[in-house]
Amino acid sequence: MKRVYLFEEGEAKDKKLLGGKGANLAEMTRMGLPVPPGFIITTETCLEYYGAGEKPPEGLMDDVATAIKHIEEKTGKKFGDAHNPLLVSVRSGAAISMPGMMDTILNLGLNDSTVKGLVEQTDNERFAYDAYRRFISMFCRIALGVDGELFDEAFERVKQKYGVEYDTDLDAKALKEAVVGFKEICRRALGREFPTDPYEQLRLAIEAVFKSWNTPRCVAYRKEFKITSDIANGTAVNVEAMVFGNMGNDSATGVAFTRDPATGENVLFGEYLTNAQGEDVVAGIRTPKPIAEMGKEMPATCRELLKIREILERRYREVQDFEFTIERGKLYMLQTRSGKMTAQARVKTVVAMVKEGILAEEEAILKVWPEDLEQLTHKRIDPKAKVKPIARGLAASPGASSGVAIFSADDAEREGRAGKNVILVREETKPEDVHGFFASQGILTSRGGKTSHAAVVARGMGKPCVSGCEAIRVDPHAKTAYVGDVIIKEGDVLTIDGGSGDVYLGEVPMIEPKLGGDITELLRWADKRRKLGVMANTDTPEGARDAKRFGAEGIGLCRTERMFSETDRLPLVQALIMAGSAEERKPYLEKLLPVQKRDFKEILKAVEGLPVTVRLLDPPLHEFLPSRDALIEEVEELKREKSLLVLKKRTHTVVKRMENVEKSIAEKERVLKRARVLAEINPMLGHRGVRVGVTCPDIYEMQIRAYYEACAELMKEGVKIKPELMVPNICTVEELLVVKEIVARVAEEVEQKFGVRVPMKFGTMIEVVRACLEADRIAEVAEFFSFGTNDLTQATFSFSREDAENKFLSIYTERGVLPDNPFQTLDVEGVGRLIQMGVELGRKTRPDLEIGICGEHGGDPKSVKFCHEVGLTYVSCSPYRVPIARLAAAQAAIKS
Amino acid sequence: MKRVYLFEEGEAKDKKLLGGKGANLAEMTRMGLPVPPGFIITTETCLEYYGAGEKPPEGLMDDVATAIKHIEEKTGKKFGDAHNPLLVSVRSGAAISMPGMMDTILNLGLNDSTVKGLVEQTDNERFAYDAYRRFISMFCRIALGVDGELFDEAFERVKQKYGVEYDTDLDAKALKEAVVGFKEICRRALGREFPTDPYEQLRLAIEAVFKSWNTPRCVAYRKEFKITSDIANGTAVNVEAMVFGNMGNDSATGVAFTRDPATGENVLFGEYLTNAQGEDVVAGIRTPKPIAEMGKEMPATCRELLKIREILERRYREVQDFEFTIERGKLYMLQTRSGKMTAQARVKTVVAMVKEGILAEEEAILKVWPEDLEQLTHKRIDPKAKVKPIARGLAASPGASSGVAIFSADDAEREGRAGKNVILVREETKPEDVHGFFASQGILTSRGGKTSHAAVVARGMGKPCVSGCEAIRVDPHAKTAYVGDVIIKEGDVLTIDGGSGDVYLGEVPMIEPKLGGDITELLRWADKRRKLGVMANTDTPEGARDAKRFGAEGIGLCRTERMFSETDRLPLVQALIMAGSAEERKPYLEKLLPVQKRDFKEILKAVEGLPVTVRLLDPPLHEFLPSRDALIEEVEELKREKSLLVLKKRTHTVVKRMENVEKSIAEKERVLKRARVLAEINPMLGHRGVRVGVTCPDIYEMQIRAYYEACAELMKEGVKIKPELMVPNICTVEELLVVKEIVARVAEEVEQKFGVRVPMKFGTMIEVVRACLEADRIAEVAEFFSFGTNDLTQATFSFSREDAENKFLSIYTERGVLPDNPFQTLDVEGVGRLIQMGVELGRKTRPDLEIGICGEHGGDPKSVKFCHEVGLTYVSCSPYRVPIARLAAAQAAIKS
Repeated sequence: MKRVYLFEEGEAKDKKLLGGKGANLAEMTRMGLPVPPGFIITTETCLEYYGAGEKPPEGLMDDVATAIKHIEEKTGKKFGDAHNPLLVSVRSGAAISMPGMMDTILNLGLNDSTVKGLVEQTDNERFAYDAYRRFISMFCRIALGVDGELFDEAFERVKQKYGVEYDTDLDAKALKEAVVGFKEICRRALGREFPTDPYEQLRLAIEAVFKSWNTPRCVAYRKEFKITSDIANGTAVNVEAMVFGNMGNDSATGVAFTRDPATGENVLFGEYLTNAQGEDVVAGIRTPKPIAEMGKEMPATCRELLKIREILERRYREVQDFEFTIERGKLYMLQTRSGKMTAQARVKTVVAMVKEGILAEEEAILKVWPEDLEQLTHKRIDPKAKVKPIARGLAASPGASSGVAIFSADDAEREGRAGKNVILVREETKPEDVHGFFASQGILTSRGGKTSHAAVVARGMGKPCVSGCEAIRVDPHAKTAYVGDVIIKEGDVLTIDGGSGDVYLGEVPMIEPKLGGDITELLRWADKRRKLGVMANTDTPEGARDAKRFGAEGIGLCRTERMFSETDRLPLVQALIMAGSAEERKPYLEKLLPVQKRDFKEILKAVEGLPVTVRLLDPPLHEFLPSRDALIEEVEELKREKSLLVLKKRTHTVVKRMENVEKSIAEKERVLKRARVLAEINPMLGHRGVRVGVTCPDIYEMQIRAYYEACAELMKEGVKIKPELMVPNICTVEELLVVKEIVARVAEEVEQKFGVRVPMKFGTMIEVVRACLEADRIAEVAEFFSFGTNDLTQATFSFSREDAENKFLSIYTERGVLPDNPFQTLDVEGVGRLIQMGVELGRKTRPDLEIGICGEHGGDPKSVKFCHEVGLTYVSCSPYRVPIARLAAAQAAIKS
Repeated sequence: MKRVYLFEEGEAKDKKLLGGKGANLAEMTRMGLPVPPGFIITTETCLEYYGAGEKPPEGLMDDVATAIKHIEEKTGKKFGDAHNPLLVSVRSGAAISMPGMMDTILNLGLNDSTVKGLVEQTDNERFAYDAYRRFISMFCRIALGVDGELFDEAFERVKQKYGVEYDTDLDAKALKEAVVGFKEICRRALGREFPTDPYEQLRLAIEAVFKSWNTPRCVAYRKEFKITSDIANGTAVNVEAMVFGNMGNDSATGVAFTRDPATGENVLFGEYLTNAQGEDVVAGIRTPKPIAEMGKEMPATCRELLKIREILERRYREVQDFEFTIERGKLYMLQTRSGKMTAQARVKTVVAMVKEGILAEEEAILKVWPEDLEQLTHKRIDPKAKVKPIARGLAASPGASSGVAIFSADDAEREGRAGKNVILVREETKPEDVHGFFASQGILTSRGGKTSHAAVVARGMGKPCVSGCEAIRVDPHAKTAYVGDVIIKEGDVLTIDGGSGDVYLGEVPMIEPKLGGDITELLRWADKRRKLGVMANTDTPEGARDAKRFGAEGIGLCRTERMFSETDRLPLVQALIMAGSAEERKPYLEKLLPVQKRDFKEILKAVEGLPVTVRLLDPPLHEFLPSRDALIEEVEELKREKSLLVLKKRTHTVVKRMENVEKSIAEKERVLKRARVLAEINPMLGHRGVRVGVTCPDIYEMQIRAYYEACAELMKEGVKIKPELMVPNICTVEELLVVKEIVARVAEEVEQKFGVRVPMKFGTMIEVVRACLEADRIAEVAEFFSFGTNDLTQATFSFSREDAENKFLSIYTERGVLPDNPFQTLDVEGVGRLIQMGVELGRKTRPDLEIGICGEHGGDPKSVKFCHEVGLTYVSCSPYRVPIARLAAAQAAIKS
């Protein structure tokens, strides 16, 4: 097994063996770029080290010595030589860079003898001893574990002695004293002399690198980011000849991007410092100069850099983030890696690279991380703004917004109408609060997970939401919230960032979203390649228009329950629920019919010509009633008022008020009674969806008629429509047949009445496990399937989404019991398997069955990939995630 | 297509074509038994009749005429003949007998002319005209749809005219007058003469039989009992020569069983009446004589009957229930069918038949309906008792019991300890009521289905339970219940029958269960044949002993949560739950450990040598806290008391009481707060089972240690044990690994401490859908599986058991949306398919994997059949259903 690779012997693709840093140094060497000579000890050697109980494998240091020889030949210097000493840097470098691994050790090889050689070579005693004292403290701290503060304190004393403020003001003599003091510190701390043999220094440094792989911080990081051993296992060690950027004004050091990482502009972008070492750039004592100035200061080197920029991009086909040093006019490349960029810059770059002939369209598509597109569809906090959040909750629905804090849906509606920007602040929200969502710019809750009511509704509407912000205590009665000592009153301005979960006091500067020409072009390329259709989940005309704007090919899920919860109709719906029989429900259903019909017409018109899939009522009826706790509280309050009124003089006003109070009590108690009858132990598994359709067919019939009539009226107006009707929550085909019977009858009646035949498609949600298992029979009746993966995931895991997210799911993902939150990323092994069965069984009966997915997963790239692989027809997601899904679908198609 | 079959042409196996009655008449004819000649019109002809829009098919009446000729030849009589007329009976008869089909028409063929022939033949004018007037009214009512009361009124007028009380006191003259009057009624009602042509009479009667197939009552019956067209489709028509049991004292009519249907004793059992017609036996005016007397009255005929009894049993291999008529000393068999018997009689009979060489053992096993065995393991209401229930609820847990009505679990415990028999009466029950169950003889609830808490717990304990008895309104505060006008106070005696759902006021006579030698023998035969093991679900030593007595081969499910809810430990458990951290929980867990260990030891000892599968804690922790509603109410009550105390003079007592009240309020509010934190939206899908084990491993560790130590201590005492440990609710193998880690550690520690190695098997419940899909991986860790089909059914259907049963499941089964309640009979298409996947995947990894089922389905015969077919190792059910499961398992093995 080869343990040591010269830079000449490696390649970029050897990352796992050589680490990211080493592989890139090797690659640049192979490309003929000016890299100081060096070598890499493999990651496998690190594993050997651990395998042997933290001992370097036999023969390793011999291989290292051979490699050092090679460097000596290349540089003409000699390791440990008293006249022309070779100095090296030692760096850690795993396949993936991670914090907690060893810092760089510079100038290794210095001792009392070689330092003199350095003086000889550089003719600069101060420089040499400065390097030496830095090396001793660095080596002691990093490789030998001596407390770094001891050196800082000693150095401070030297400065005091010489009465100087800055390190740079110390002369060679003072630095020599510092060296003596530093060595003394080492002796005292470790009970041994500072190691002077360069090979011993090197061995200790190599072992320190190996050890750093298992520091608690590094282990925790791997766990947190799920870096398993098949991705990165062990760290490599990079040993490289030192070059110096601080050898005078013809020396410099700098970092650069091959393009502007913020905007994507095609210019060399970076900073440099003349006569400086790398750590000076980082330390921020001197202000680096923009690279543009280099053209004047060092025109030849600058031209060389521009050439290298081009070579790097063509080789890596990615924007590179590289470090360089100029030693006495000669340029050295010290590192390169893929550059981190803003989403916008990345999109601009890949599109440009296609035009420059660097990338093919397909490569460009693969190079953008779909999730990043979300930044482009939402407002966000200006990253340059110097602001500190007062609390952080869950990033529940992306986008940022500012507004006055308002504590109830009704108040939000009133203030919203008055033209104010509103942030609705609640402990948690319920369907009866939805009118407040419409009026608000953002929603902030102190309870509930990323899939709480607030989060789901906000995402559906494309409004920013921070949920489960437990640091905030909300008192809705007092219209006040508390965060530690901070008191937020109604009307105080808040800013929330639903992309990060941050909450700020006051207004914060923001950046407007830009969906410019580049992203449009990229998505156009994506659309050419993807096999999956992309639809949107929305239930408002505005949402439908957003969906179209973001490229949705139709509405894949139009929920009808939100149409039930808007302020103007909720009382009607509640009266409907209070009614005990179909007969009593009739007048309310008759009033709801035209309202619902109008909703449908508006949505159909907003996406004229595109399919609109309407789902019949899904939630249990009790969800539309006020909460029992709220009712109990209201009744108690009224009773208290009553007991006070009894003590008052019976004036006309008091008598009148008494009557009203008593009426209110009676009314609320009636609702409370009904709410108790309808209450369920497990509402998720209760009387909802088609179960309501079977037991109260009149409610479903009203919805079906409203949709049919909406369609018929639009057809007569000449509007193009593609209506689809979908039944939720079925567990057996018989339920579907019950609804189909109503549909057939209504279709007939509407045709009679309007003289047109509505081209309605009839399909079903597949969100109950049993429906997946019986999909062959269901496909006999359903013309399309839409997998409701939210509910299907709940049933497959027996997880109640909200309970799980509040109570144990985070512990599960932290402990690795589950790899991901299955409500965010589709669980391929479990839920995915059921979907696959559903697809196979369904298509066995009806080979051309259209099958989609309309859960939250429809906008998650990993899940979209699965949907492509399993052969779905389309995904449907929040309008704001449509671009993500389009890109992810194209990536899946290209990869497969 | 042959439409008309002579009796000589059919067989018993032609039931579907000839109807049950016709096929048996044909069979008896073939056997050479004395059956009056006759023929059968096929059920297919009935379908033809409907196919042609309710018209008899062309040529049918020609075939009928040919068949009549055959009867004429056999009897020497002639249809419509004025001197020796042939009279016939016409009867309906489908493959399965069902109410709502046509009554028998007797004496068809009579008219003004043939009646004279009947006089001539019988020399009995009174007999002939009595037959004639009966025929006219019967025919008009049954075949022509005339209101029967008109005839009764007219006949009453004749009796008044002649001043007689009984029909039998009328002479021929009076009966002739009645005939004239009856014909007049027919004329007026139908506007036509009574049909005198015998062939017209016959055609009308045949059509009436056909029509009766579709009467609403008959259709409803088929729907109710799921008699689909593949079981019975259309009715046959049986036409048979009349014989008369009322032709003098050498004539008689009777019904008999080939054995005693109540006891199974091997004697001819029945009753007869001399000089009587069939309807006289039914009418109950004269008291029939037991068949034993026939030996003296008609010794020859009696001998013939005894011979026939033997022939019938040997042919049908079933106890027969038959009708006969003796006309002037000659015996005729009119009908035979399988006899309905008590469970006990049936068991005795089949065992005896094996010994008599009539049946093989396997046939005997197949002839007993497993559900019937339940009668043999429980007390029941004496069927001879003349009692009327005051209400009927759901038959939730079989058995009957009497006791004083008690309205709270605490009171029940007190009264039970005082030696009283108690019926616990509640709206519904919760885990905190379980101590009341132990103390009660029966449980009655006004709410909740067959799988409510009360029902499940009662079944587990083998105690009678009537649940969901909505007619009863329970007021626990007033310790009173109301059923209409009836008021039940604490201490009033009630009797409940959990096998029927009936509730009686006062004590009702009962029959003790007998599990005699015959059933033991039958089950011994069954045990030889079954492949499935049969275990019991129980968590008490008493239950374990019952289980062993009923033949269980071990405890397949020992729940540990009930051990948490007993009075002496519930406070400890509640304190445990109030604790916020593992540190705070520690003292309570230390106290619970010895308690739980003692429980385990007792159960292990009760079934020494048999396996005992202990399941770790399953329910969510909040189930052990008092309900939030109860807490709120208690706090409110205390607050009211406090506000009254404030107004009182501050005596020492008042101050003291005030302090106590305030302390109670604070304490209860603390519990309430915790209950609110732990509250879940969908507890069935919430923080329970292994999820508690992962988040609070200390609780699981206590249980594991308790079981291991119990085992170790018993081993040192020399007690033989087969312990198994089971983890509930897993959805992925990783959860199992978390628990396995604890188990491995505890096993090691216990071995260290006790010096013995406990031979523990480690397995898991499979009750989450995802676990079925990942069973191959799970089997890498689990040594056995136990399907929890209750929860698996909930998850597969997305049905919350209690919500579904209360809100929509009955509508689903009534409307045929689902064939059965899937919580009673395993849903083979859905849940069954998942089980099959789980079995196949599990055995792929571990071919010898033991797999059981421990849901309620383990005691349901249909489900047991499925378990056999899918290759499970065992079923586990309530101790009282163990005999049922043993028999059902044997039947499944024999049938496959």
